[in-house]
Amino acid sequence: MRILICPPREIWDNLCERPVIKREDLENSVRVIINSVKKNGDKALLKYSEEFDKVNLPNLKVTAGEILNSENSVPDELKGAIKIAKSNITKFHSSQLLSEEIIETTMGVRCWRKSVAIEKVGLYIPGGSAPLFSTILMLGIPAIIAGCNEIVLCSPPDKTGCINPVLLYTAKLLGINNIFKIGGAQAIAAMAFGTESVPAVYKIFGPGNQFVTKAKECIQQEGIAIDMPAGPSEVLVIADANSNPEFIAADLLSQAEHGSDSQVILLTDNTDFIGLVREEIEKQLSLLPRRGIIETSLSGSLLISLPTLDDCIDFSNQYAPEHLIINTAEPQKLAVKVRNAGSVFLGAYSCESAGDYASGTNHTLPTNGFARTYSGLSLDSFVKKISFQEITREGLSGLGPTIEIMAGAESLEAHKNAVTVRLKSIKNG
Amino acid sequence: MRILICPPREIWDNLCERPVIKREDLENSVRVIINSVKKNGDKALLKYSEEFDKVNLPNLKVTAGEILNSENSVPDELKGAIKIAKSNITKFHSSQLLSEEIIETTMGVRCWRKSVAIEKVGLYIPGGSAPLFSTILMLGIPAIIAGCNEIVLCSPPDKTGCINPVLLYTAKLLGINNIFKIGGAQAIAAMAFGTESVPAVYKIFGPGNQFVTKAKECIQQEGIAIDMPAGPSEVLVIADANSNPEFIAADLLSQAEHGSDSQVILLTDNTDFIGLVREEIEKQLSLLPRRGIIETSLSGSLLISLPTLDDCIDFSNQYAPEHLIINTAEPQKLAVKVRNAGSVFLGAYSCESAGDYASGTNHTLPTNGFARTYSGLSLDSFVKKISFQEITREGLSGLGPTIEIMAGAESLEAHKNAVTVRLKSIKNG
Repeated sequence: MRILICPPREIWDNLCERPVIKREDLENSVRVIINSVKKNGDKALLKYSEEFDKVNLPNLKVTAGEILNSENSVPDELKGAIKIAKSNITKFHSSQLLSEEIIETTMGVRCWRKSVAIEKVGLYIPGGSAPLFSTILMLGIPAIIAGCNEIVLCSPPDKTGCINPVLLYTAKLLGINNIFKIGGAQAIAAMAFGTESVPAVYKIFGPGNQFVTKAKECIQQEGIAIDMPAGPSEVLVIADANSNPEFIAADLLSQAEHGSDSQVILLTDNTDFIGLVREEIEKQLSLLPRRGIIETSLSGSLLISLPTLDDCIDFSNQYAPEHLIINTAEPQKLAVKVRNAGSVFLGAYSCESAGDYASGTNHTLPTNGFARTYSGLSLDSFVKKISFQEITREGLSGLGPTIEIMAGAESLEAHKNAVTVRLKSIKNG
Repeated sequence: MRILICPPREIWDNLCERPVIKREDLENSVRVIINSVKKNGDKALLKYSEEFDKVNLPNLKVTAGEILNSENSVPDELKGAIKIAKSNITKFHSSQLLSEEIIETTMGVRCWRKSVAIEKVGLYIPGGSAPLFSTILMLGIPAIIAGCNEIVLCSPPDKTGCINPVLLYTAKLLGINNIFKIGGAQAIAAMAFGTESVPAVYKIFGPGNQFVTKAKECIQQEGIAIDMPAGPSEVLVIADANSNPEFIAADLLSQAEHGSDSQVILLTDNTDFIGLVREEIEKQLSLLPRRGIIETSLSGSLLISLPTLDDCIDFSNQYAPEHLIINTAEPQKLAVKVRNAGSVFLGAYSCESAGDYASGTNHTLPTNGFARTYSGLSLDSFVKKISFQEITREGLSGLGPTIEIMAGAESLEAHKNAVTVRLKSIKNG
């Protein structure tokens, strides 16, 4: 942990820098995988499964039986929790539906936008030791609300050729049945270009390791849309003397356990508070199972005191954190000043874990400074907003001459003529 | 013009294919330009201006005097038209402001989203024979409404070192004063990375030639956001026996004049109608100044009859046109079936030129099939939607156990602990 007392603004840029992730050496191996899947389809997928997942799969698609059986392997308590989270996430994302307000911009000229679902979407859920079923909720629920026709889900199988039943249960709960046992760059390639078993989709969502991330970058260059660019997860916490150091330490630790590259920053206007948080971190850390990962990511963390809370929010806006926790006496006072952040948590009881799992907001958020330009995942990510216009005879009579003048000034005479022929026809009757 | 009578669905995929644009050979020259601007800043920009624009610029930034003088060179009639367009575009885009509805997903758990402007944006306006002032309206108005702090505009100078006064007048009308005489890939590089004169921005908008397009692709890979991927402009018109062939021909011709790579498609359920439209095209074409361009793009155009209007809308959804004109007796009947399109024009009097200039909708739209996943430009393009949550003590007491169960099941004990320490404190306190 690096402690800085009132670092001057000149070095903030430096403090806000993210670790540079070198992925160029990956590009070749990822392109080989993508081209192989493009060329050999399922055959390539089965070969990679043998190579990377160490399993000989009889079939890529999860069977109806496997999905059905998943129900029995998931404890009732966990099922109940997943259902509560589903309900909250559904409530919040349903509120994001665009109301089709029709605007009469001028007499007889009516314009509106309509949200229409992206027809085919692909969701990637990473494998590994723990089943990330919460990500199925975060990606699947808005896809379902949007009305995406075809939802394809890929996740790597374990060594016995199975996908964790909690993942299957969660997918089933949402009504997602098109599930494939495919991981890594090959899963991204399969959903991007389609194979005998896997339908091609138009947009691909979901987190993953550096192979998955690079594959998403590559297929984006070939015209398939992706959710957003990826980077290591981040939290920035703003605290003052009123904050409970035990809570703050727990929030910093929860971010640090994501991965050894996780970014953890504490800002406070109270220098003494830093010491209290450090003590709490030591205390709590000794009890946590992912100690190794946490220690590595904490070694790069910043604990910074600044003269005022306004300085803290300035720093935060410059850093543009994925998660911003404002745990101060009056969080709303700072909240209105947030310019760049993925998701903001206000007050002592709004811990990041709440948003990660169950409060209703999405946990897929812009990292790596992308919060300056990108929004987190929402219903918007699963729809296009198509604009419509309907102009009446009277409407064109009024607006037509304006269009003619502008088109003429841009030397686009055919554009002008499309109005002129209509105005003449109106005049003639 | 290629005429097809009831082509079978098996070949629709083929008919929907876009021309493949080979840009790989460009990549090297564009990367050289980008790196040179990164390294040498203004010096590189002035050198490229000499090389490409054939002018020795005394300064890159348009002076206040130049902007002020522009007022005198623009005819009053055109000023009036631009003001009407500005008013309509402002009305429609203002309606796109997100209302900050607070959702209480469960007792004591309040979630909402807030639109916050992208702080620094860059607008690129191409040069050439005609001044594309309409694009300044389409990019600048939502940027202003969103509240973007810093708006940088680049456009190439002519051989006398000037930017067309209509462009300057339009920018001034919107309140945009940060205008630079820079064109091509070097303009994109300057806005992406900044130079001594040009401020660096976070997101770059605007059309351009293949150098500009390739430069936008390159800087996107370096983490700067862009509006959307680009391709040749397109229109698909659906007409029936009730349509006026004169109007339809004019609409097809107006699209065809954009460039020799413009995509023009007519669909109708009435085979005879195709002949009428062809006659009208011949008649109108002879009077149009951009005949050469139009003839080239028409040579690749498709005039297709299909059994029913429903087949026409199916084809259109498969093609995913940038502009879709539904000029039939009952356009609303087909409008509800639109799944993929950038902007839709309903009825006999809603010509594409209206949306290109003055009805209020944006004319920056997804081409090349990207309408399957991307929306046209809107206020959304200039903001991030930041999610917020505020959980009360009671809220966390209720939701906390759910979070603990889920985090535990994902083996993220520190996530669980961030809730546990709070629940304990609530219990004890």
